[in-house]
Formats: sequence, structure tokens, C-alpha cells
Amino acid sequence: MVKKSSSQLSHLDAEGRIRMVDVGAKAVTARTAEASGFVMMSPATVRAIREHRTPKGDPLEAARLAGIMAAKRTPELIPLCHSLALSHADVQIELRDDGARITATASTSAQTGVEMEALTAVSVAALTLYDMCKAIDREMTITKIRLERKSGGRSGEWRRSGNKKKG
Amino acid sequence: MVKKSSSQLSHLDAEGRIRMVDVGAKAVTARTAEASGFVMMSPATVRAIREHRTPKGDPLEAARLAGIMAAKRTPELIPLCHSLALSHADVQIELRDDGARITATASTSAQTGVEMEALTAVSVAALTLYDMCKAIDREMTITKIRLERKSGGRSGEWRRSGNKKKG
Amino acid sequence: MVKKSSSQLSHLDAEGRIRMVDVGAKAVTARTAEASGFVMMSPATVRAIREHRTPKGDPLEAARLAGIMAAKRTPELIPLCHSLALSHADVQIELRDDGARITATASTSAQTGVEMEALTAVSVAALTLYDMCKAIDREMTITKIRLERKSGGRSGEWRRSGNKKKG
Amino acid sequence: MVKKSSSQLSHLDAEGRIRMVDVGAKAVTARTAEASGFVMMSPATVRAIREHRTPKGDPLEAARLAGIMAAKRTPELIPLCHSLALSHADVQIELRDDGARITATASTSAQTGVEMEALTAVSVAALTLYDMCKAIDREMTITKIRLERKSGGRSGEWRRSGNKKKG
Amino acid sequence: MVKKSSSQLSHLDAEGRIRMVDVGAKAVTARTAEASGFVMMSPATVRAIREHRTPKGDPLEAARLAGIMAAKRTPELIPLCHSLALSHADVQIELRDDGARITATASTSAQTGVEMEALTAVSVAALTLYDMCKAIDREMTITKIRLERKSGGRSGEWRRSGNKKKG
Amino acid sequence: MVKKSSSQLSHLDAEGRIRMVDVGAKAVTARTAEASGFVMMSPATVRAIREHRTPKGDPLEAARLAGIMAAKRTPELIPLCHSLALSHADVQIELRDDGARITATASTSAQTGVEMEALTAVSVAALTLYDMCKAIDREMTITKIRLERKSGGRSGEWRRSGNKKKG
Repeated sequence: MVKKSSSQLSHLDAEGRIRMVDVGAKAVTARTAEASGFVMMSPATVRAIREHRTPKGDPLEAARLAGIMAAKRTPELIPLCHSLALSHADVQIELRDDGARITATASTSAQTGVEMEALTAVSVAALTLYDMCKAIDREMTITKIRLERKSGGRSGEWRRSGNKKKG
Repeated sequence: MVKKSSSQLSHLDAEGRIRMVDVGAKAVTARTAEASGFVMMSPATVRAIREHRTPKGDPLEAARLAGIMAAKRTPELIPLCHSLALSHADVQIELRDDGARITATASTSAQTGVEMEALTAVSVAALTLYDMCKAIDREMTITKIRLERKSGGRSGEWRRSGNKKKG
Repeated sequence: MVKKSSSQLSHLDAEGRIRMVDVGAKAVTARTAEASGFVMMSPATVRAIREHRTPKGDPLEAARLAGIMAAKRTPELIPLCHSLALSHADVQIELRDDGARITATASTSAQTGVEMEALTAVSVAALTLYDMCKAIDREMTITKIRLERKSGGRSGEWRRSGNKKKG
Repeated sequence: MVKKSSSQLSHLDAEGRIRMVDVGAKAVTARTAEASGFVMMSPATVRAIREHRTPKGDPLEAARLAGIMAAKRTPELIPLCHSLALSHADVQIELRDDGARITATASTSAQTGVEMEALTAVSVAALTLYDMCKAIDREMTITKIRLERKSGGRSGEWRRSGNKKKG
Repeated sequence: MVKKSSSQLSHLDAEGRIRMVDVGAKAVTARTAEASGFVMMSPATVRAIREHRTPKGDPLEAARLAGIMAAKRTPELIPLCHSLALSHADVQIELRDDGARITATASTSAQTGVEMEALTAVSVAALTLYDMCKAIDREMTITKIRLERKSGGRSGEWRRSGNKKKG
Repeated sequence: MVKKSSSQLSHLDAEGRIRMVDVGAKAVTARTAEASGFVMMSPATVRAIREHRTPKGDPLEAARLAGIMAAKRTPELIPLCHSLALSHADVQIELRDDGARITATASTSAQTGVEMEALTAVSVAALTLYDMCKAIDREMTITKIRLERKSGGRSGEWRRSGNKKKG
């Protein structure tokens, strides 16, 4: 599972100080990332969401919008993450009987990847779902937030191992 | 698991439109919340973090700081969350052989609770750990983000059911 | 229409320098404000919005959410506006044949009023509507953004003159 | 006035969910936009501003600065607006006997236009004028916020119809 | 000069981890702080500023406004600083033959002091002066940023030693 | 010390109004800047920091992280500063017997330089050190914040005069 030598964490310099990676010498390429997560809910909570999905809006749309907005602000939240201009960010939420599955994608043309943007979008969408349903269910659990795939940059296409079955 | 009638999600008005809860009539009381989460890592990643924990700093401290800072910005991220002044926010991270357990607490004296602040602190600390280790392990998974307990406000003390064994 | 002596604009000090009003000696009271605005649209644009109002969400909900979020960030945008914790913010949008009427309310318990929060919510909701429809109608015009009423504080209840007929 | 088929609002996907436009395939070109607006004021308010315009600063400069700063933060406010780096933003304010006319321009070299940046600059400049004069005139109305022209991108030069007479 | 036992830095917990001070048990009192700083400039730069101080605005007003706005955002910048609502923030700038002296005051009614708000206002005002004059003088130096006095809270009134002569 | 004719401050237009520089016609080049500053501390404060520098983190790392994060947010703080994507930001802090010397570097590939990003990183790192030590030493002074060198852009390489001896 470890993709490079573990002798070097790229955010630490020779003396172990926290540092931002210098991407100045990296190529500007089209980069995308996809991440996912799941908010476990009681069946009653899922039903409550379903019953209130009206033409005027619903918690899923608020969560999607919050996730997209958070993707844009990722570098403010994650200390060593580079600022970049996303060409696209999207959050999809699928309501299942035991909760909500969230998938986010982010794309850019830049010197660094957008994994953190996709993961942040999933996380904030999940937190928003929690916020909007917590009055009826405080026990919801946000789980399985993970990178599904990425493309672009030096390492090219990457997919989570076992993605065929888990995806 | 559902604590109130599921006939009413408090963020939706009579016609189903998304709405912020009006807390103007709630009492100002001391409120605290504790949340937790876990970042699953490969043993090699955990070892890599351990080997680089030097006097000059380490990924765990960056994640803790990012979580505390995010707690303060929760209302910017979560659309219907109220702004409030935290009297305290803390993030603790315990490195285990299979990953990092994150616990966050938030406190305030306000008309509304701080569950979202604690959950946001956990989430952003987890994302920061991911960011700082992703160069060696893209398969890390952020999991089990959940509220552990809250106190203050009308509903008083609340603890996750089964907290004794799972905590 | 001018409510005090025009000899003194409260944001300018004796030498005319821009200054924030010191509200330290004002009473903490419950304060509310209501503002409104209108986005003029072509009939075809209004119809396009109406046809796409699906159970999964629509531009009006995005605009409402953006307005509520902007209300919370008013002091970051308006240089001399005080930070405060809103107990409530709401944005309503009514689609008419010639556009969309936006109404926003904001409430707090603080030493200063929330007129700017209500006006900012209306403005950002209107901008969001523009953004979401501009691909089909660049000629939309945002108009009539104004304070409708306010309550609380030293000046008590205030209503726009002629509010009965224009409201 | 509707420039494309109204059968498709570009922010909605096939199922009507809110979405960000993917600009990844668009060309990076120089793009500019100009927007305008008007703050209607009582003659007494206009006179008050004129009398206090001192060498140390005045409300108009605060409003101009607030507008420029807001232009840079547009993607934080407008949910589906792309982040981009402005090469220029400017706000001009002309005081007239019945209020203040605001004009803003924004420029970039990017894959998407800057209409929202220009409109946001106008709106926040207008709100700042309101904030700085509201102590003497709560009835001011912000009106006629609209796009005047844009250039760059696939659609090339665009000017508001009737711009010659209204401009 | 050290006011308490140096055996305990209040931001570090028993194991030396960074932590936010818990102010939940502190009294809400009126608190103020005053800070100052100086931007050393060449005489030619000072003259250039003086010559351009026109009725339409000048670098000093932009710096003052930027300082006031930054004071409100202090908790976003300083990781362990508490969020609070300022009742007042002010920045004064006095142009001298060898540069610009900046003084900032901040006030609140809260459980914690506003020293950082005053110091941040001075710092950002100084940076803004630098930005606005750097095209003609890159050698400007920002210096002597320090707390002058504070009041309120448990420690009561404090003044910098030697404040009588240096102030 | 003045590098251009002082007859023209580039942020002021013909009538003296504050304005952003239009960088649309400038070349995109690799640009770097280095800035430095010093926080004067009592020897007891320096010793206190040294004694608490544990494997779990210390004030210097918090200050470094805060500086890096602030560099990314420079355009939000400095009104006329352009938004850009940093390819790198770094803050180094060297503890000396009389305080802490801070050095920051920033890099980008853009149409405008990153002096303000480097200076902002130094300033916020210094403020964070102040915040984290102020409980034991309120008399610390932040001093000598200045640009050390810059490269890239039309003016090419620039170094502070006397950099050999003062550096």
C-alpha cells in the first residue's frame, strides 16, 4: 500500500520541520481526483429525508452546494495545500436505506493535484448532512472517506486497489 | 436512535425550503461537545510518522492546529450553522499501529450547541493528516467521525449509546 | 428622509478620517432587520427556472443558501461593519412573471443592528440568481435593494416610509 | 433578450441537480467585464458626503476599496462561481445629485469570464456606501446593478442592448 | 520584563502539545488594547505620499481600512486566538519625515483580551503601506510593532514600561 | 533608495484615487521573494521556549504554519494585492538569545510578484509567536520586517542594499 520509500515524508524537511512541497518545477497538466464517503444514518432518518424532498429543495442539495463551496476553499483549511483554480468540482449524493453515499470530483490544470479538494468536498458535504439531520439523529457516523482515483501529473492514473469490487 | 419525531426536520420550513433554525429564544448556556474519528493507515505509514517525530514538529501537530483553526471557521463551511465565539477548542491525536485516533472538544457559552465545531475539527485534522502523508500512502481512509457527547442547552447531557464500550 | 442632522456622518471622525463606530456603550438588545430586492428577468428566463424546478433542487434554493451564508460573512465584506453572532438569517425568494423578489431577515442580540446582514443576504442571493441564469439571460438587472424595517436598539422600530403600498 | 435556447440552464444537470460548469475544455483567453449600479440617495445625503470629502479620506474611497476586495472573493460568495486570478479590478464612483453611480471592471486571463466579479464589486461597493451613510439616511435604495459589457471567451464581445442611450 | 513564572507557557499542555487557552471560566469584562508600529521610509517616499494626498483618497486611508478589516479577522490568522466580537477597532497613521507611525486600538466585551487584534491591525496596516509604496521604495522596513497598553480582565491595566518617554 | 521617479505612485490614478495595478500585459514568469523579521524577546522568554520544545510540537512550528497559511491569504488582507497561486511558501524561524529571527520565501509563476506574500508570512508568524508567548512576556517587539530579495518579472533580481552585512 505504501507507494514510495517511507524514508521520506515529503512535507518534512531535513530537520523534520513541516514544509510545503515546492511544485514550481512540476508540469502544468490536467489533473482530476475522485473521492467518496458515506454517512451512516438510521432508517428513520433516511425516511425523514425522503419524505421532505420537495420541489423547493432538500438537505441533499444543501450538502452538495456546501461541498462544492468547500472544495474551492481547501487551501485555507489544509495548511500545506497549494492554492489553485478548479476548472470543475462536483458532489453527488445517493440516498440509500442505511445512509447517504457521497462522491466528489475535482479537476484543474495546475502543477499539483486535487485529491485534497475532492476529499474536502466529501467531508464538508457529509458534515452538512449531519448538521441538517442532527435534530432527529445524533448518532449518524461519517465513514469511509477516501480517494477513489486520480489522474494527471507525474504519477499518472491511479485507482484505489480493489476499486472494482468496492467502488 | 431517532430522538424526536421524524415528522419534522428542523432545517426545513413548512414548504420544505432550507432554513436556519432561529435560536433567538434559546437560553445562553455553557455548551460543550466532543467528537472523534479515525484515520486508517498502513503500518508502514504509521512507522514513517513515528520515525519523523522530531523536536521541530511533526504531522500530528500540524493536523491538531488545522483542526483547531477549522473549528473557528465552522459557520463559514456549514451553511446553516450559527456563528458563535468558542471559549475553547482542542484536538488530540493518538497514533496507533493501524492509524491515528482523533478527538476534538469545543466549548462555548451561547444560544446554540457546538457539535458541528467539534465534528469539523476532527474532519479537518483528519484531512490534514491525509494531506501530509498522502505522498507515501494514498489508500488511507478517514472513518468513524461521530459525536461522542454533548452538554448544555435544553437537551442537557447526551452521550452516544454504547459509549462505554466503543469510546 | 434624513433622520439626523446631516452635519455628522458617523463613520468619519473630526478630521474626516474613516472610522468604525464604537458600540461599546450601546445596550445589548434583540435586533432584527428585513431587507428586500428584485431581480428583473425576461419572461423566458422565469419560465426556464420554473420548468427546471425539480425535486433535486433549483436555482432559488442555491440563491437562498448563498444569501444565508453571506449574511454570516457581512463583517468581512463591509469594512466598518461589526462582527456579531446572528441568531437567525433567512432568505425568501418569490418567482414572479417578470423576475424574482428576494426578502431577507436577520436577527441578533447585540450592541449593533443587523441591517447590513439583511441587505448583504439579499445582494448575494440576487448575484447567485444572476450567476445561475446568466447563460440564458445576461440582461437581468438587480434592483430595489433596500431596508424594509428594523427593530431593536436606541431607535426602536423603523419602517420604510410608504411601506404599506410598496411592501 | 434570451441569448440561447432556454431548454437548458447550464448549472443544472440532466436530473436538475445544481452543478458547477466544467470549464476544463475552454480556452484560456483574456476576458474582461464591466458592470454598473446606482445608489439612490436623498439630496441631503449627497450633500453630506460632499461636505465631508476631506484630504484624509471619504466614504467613496472606502466603498471603492471594499468593492475591489470583494471582487477577489467572489468565488467564496457565489456558490458555483470558479476561482480565478484577476489581473485587474477597478471600481469608480461618481456622485450625482440623486445618488452615486458605481462602475466596476474586472479582467483575467482564464477559462471563464469575470462577469460575477464585476457585479460583486458593484454590489459590495453599494452596500458599503449604504453602511457608511445609513446613520443619516436609511431609505437609500441600491438599484440597476447590471452587466454593461463583456469580452473574451467563446461568445466574444457583448454589450447590453440599448447601452448607447442608457450607459 | 517577564510577568509570570516562566515555567509555564499557557499554550502548551502538560506534554508540550500546542493548545488553545480555555477561557470559559473567565469573566466577561470590557477589554481594550492599544498597539503601535512604525514603517521606516526614505524621505522621498514620504514626500511622494504627501504630494498625492488628494480629496479622492490616499494610501494612508487604504492602510487604515485594511488594518480595521484585519482586526476583525485576527482569529482566522492567529491559530490559537479566540473569536470575539469587537465593539470598536481603530487605526491611526501619522506621517513623519522618516516614515509612518501606526497606532491601533481594539475593544470588546468578552472573556479574553484583544491584544492580538490591535497588533494584527497595526501589522496589516503596515503591510498595506508597504504594498502601496513598494513600486518606489522596496527598502521600507516595518519595525517596533508592540503592545502599548491593555485594560480589562484579571490583570487589569497594563502599560509598556517606559511608555511615558517612548509613547 | 527610491527606484523610480517619485512623481507616480502606481496605486493612484490620475486623480489620486486608489487603484489596483493592471498586470494583464505583464509576462507570466517565475517569481520569488524573500523577507525577514525579528521578534525581540527577553532572555527568560527565549529560555522558556527552549525548555518546552518537545517532540509533540512547539510555538515555533505553530508560527511557521500560521505564516505559511497567511501567505496563501495575502490578497484577502492587502486590499490592492493580486490573487495568485503560490508554488511554494516557506517560513524558517531561528531562535537566538534575544529573540527569534523569521525568514520567509514565496514563489509563483504569475504576472506579478510575491513580495507581499513573503512579508505577510513573516508578519503573521511573528504575531503568532507573540500570541503564544504573551502570557509570560507582553513587552516583545516585532521589528525589522523587510524584503531581502526578489527575482523574476521586469525588474529581475533585486537585493536589499547592504544585504551582505545586515543579512
